[in-house]
Amino acid sequence: MKRLLIASTSTLHESGYLEYLRQDLAQLFSGCKQILFIPYARPGGISEDAYTEKAQVFFKSLGILLKGIHTFKDPIKAIEEAEGFFTGGGNTFLLVKQLYQHQVLEPLRNAIFDGTPYLGTSAGSNICGVTMQTTNDMPIVYPPSFKTLGVVPFNINPHYLDPDPNSNHMGETRETRIKEFHTQNSLPVIGLREGSWLDVQGESIILRGNLSARIFKQSKTPFELDSGLKIDLTLA
Amino acid sequence: MKRLLIASTSTLHESGYLEYLRQDLAQLFSGCKQILFIPYARPGGISEDAYTEKAQVFFKSLGILLKGIHTFKDPIKAIEEAEGFFTGGGNTFLLVKQLYQHQVLEPLRNAIFDGTPYLGTSAGSNICGVTMQTTNDMPIVYPPSFKTLGVVPFNINPHYLDPDPNSNHMGETRETRIKEFHTQNSLPVIGLREGSWLDVQGESIILRGNLSARIFKQSKTPFELDSGLKIDLTLA
Repeated sequence: MKRLLIASTSTLHESGYLEYLRQDLAQLFSGCKQILFIPYARPGGISEDAYTEKAQVFFKSLGILLKGIHTFKDPIKAIEEAEGFFTGGGNTFLLVKQLYQHQVLEPLRNAIFDGTPYLGTSAGSNICGVTMQTTNDMPIVYPPSFKTLGVVPFNINPHYLDPDPNSNHMGETRETRIKEFHTQNSLPVIGLREGSWLDVQGESIILRGNLSARIFKQSKTPFELDSGLKIDLTLA
Repeated sequence: MKRLLIASTSTLHESGYLEYLRQDLAQLFSGCKQILFIPYARPGGISEDAYTEKAQVFFKSLGILLKGIHTFKDPIKAIEEAEGFFTGGGNTFLLVKQLYQHQVLEPLRNAIFDGTPYLGTSAGSNICGVTMQTTNDMPIVYPPSFKTLGVVPFNINPHYLDPDPNSNHMGETRETRIKEFHTQNSLPVIGLREGSWLDVQGESIILRGNLSARIFKQSKTPFELDSGLKIDLTLA
C-alpha cells in the first residue's frame, strides 16, 4: 500500500526545517532506522553534501539515519533497498534530469507502489504528479522528458500563491499560468498552499494542514477543497 | 544592422497595451507598411486570432497593418518577406515549441541579423537571449530544445521582480532562481524590470526606461546597471 506525505514546502515562515510535519513524519517513518535522501534538486545551488547534512539534523532528532543517494555507488540498488525516501525541494528540472540520468525514476516509482514510505517537499512533491509541468521553477537544465512518478493521478503546483490584489506587477499570476497549462493538457492540478500536504494511504488521498487547496480542472472554474477532505479520484 | 526593441512587458500598470513604447515603436517601424505578428505564446490561452486583433488595434494607430503568422500558408516565406516583426508575450515554452515546429527560428534569426526590425515583449523578449532558460513560465509543453534566437549574447529574465522583504512566502525568489541557473550555466543574465527595455542597434545594446536593470554573472555578486548605459559585450 502506497504511503506518502506530499508537502507544498519543507519550511513554514518562522519555523524550523520540517518542524510543522514532525508528528506526521514520525508516524510515516515509524519502524525505519535509515532513509534515503534524494538531494538532486539542490535549492539555491547548494551542494548535495550540504543539503544532506541539513536534512540529517532533522531526521536524527527522530532517531532516523538519513543517507544521500549521491553517496551510493549503485543508486538503483540504493533505491531498491531503502526503508524510506525523502526527496527535498530545489529546482525541479535539475531533479528530474538527474532522476533520468541515474535511471532511478522507475525503481523509485516501483518502491513507492510496493509501500516504501515517501516524503516529498516542493520539487520532491511536484514529481509525485503525472508530469512536472506545473512546477514554478526555471528550466535551468533540459531533462529528457517532463514525465514524473505519477503516484497521484493529477499534477501538483507546490507553493501555490493566490493572486495579490494590490500588485501592479504585470507578470502572469499562478492561476493564469495553470490556465495556460490547461490550454495544452487535460490533467487536473492541485494548487497546494504552504502549510498544506497530501496524506496518501493506498488509494486514499486526504488534504492536510490548516488551509484549503485550489483545484483546477480543464475548462472548469477553479474551486477550493477543504482540509481533511478526500481527493476524489474522478479528478483524474 | 540589427535593430530590436526588447521589452520586459507589453503593458505598464494603468496604461494601454504598448502605449509606453509608442514613440520608440513609431521610430523602430518607420517606413514599414505591414509587420508580421508572432502570436504563438498565447497569453492566458487566448486564441491566436484574438491575440492578433489586440495587437492590430495598437499598430493601426501607428498607421501599420499587422498580420498574424498563423494566417500564412507558408510561415517561412512570411518571415523572409516581412518588413518587421513583433513577437508578443505569453507562455515561452509554447512559443519556442511552435517556432521549432514551424521551422521559423532560423529564418527569423537571419532576418533580424539582416536588419529587419524586431519588437519583443515578455516571452517575445526572452527568445532574443541565447536560451529560454531564464523564463518565468510554466513548462506546459515540451519544446525540442531550449536554444533560442541568440541575437543578444546573454539571457534575459523579463518581468524581473525584486525580493519582497515583507513576504512570508517560502518559494524561491527570482534572484535565487537565477542563482540556480548559474550553478548549471555560465551565460550572463539581465533581469529586466517592467518598464525597461533593450534598444539594440547593431552591436550597441542600451538599457532604456526609468529603472535600472539587474545583472547576474556566474560566481559574481549581482549588480545594477543604470538606464541609458551601454551593455558591455564583455558580459558574454
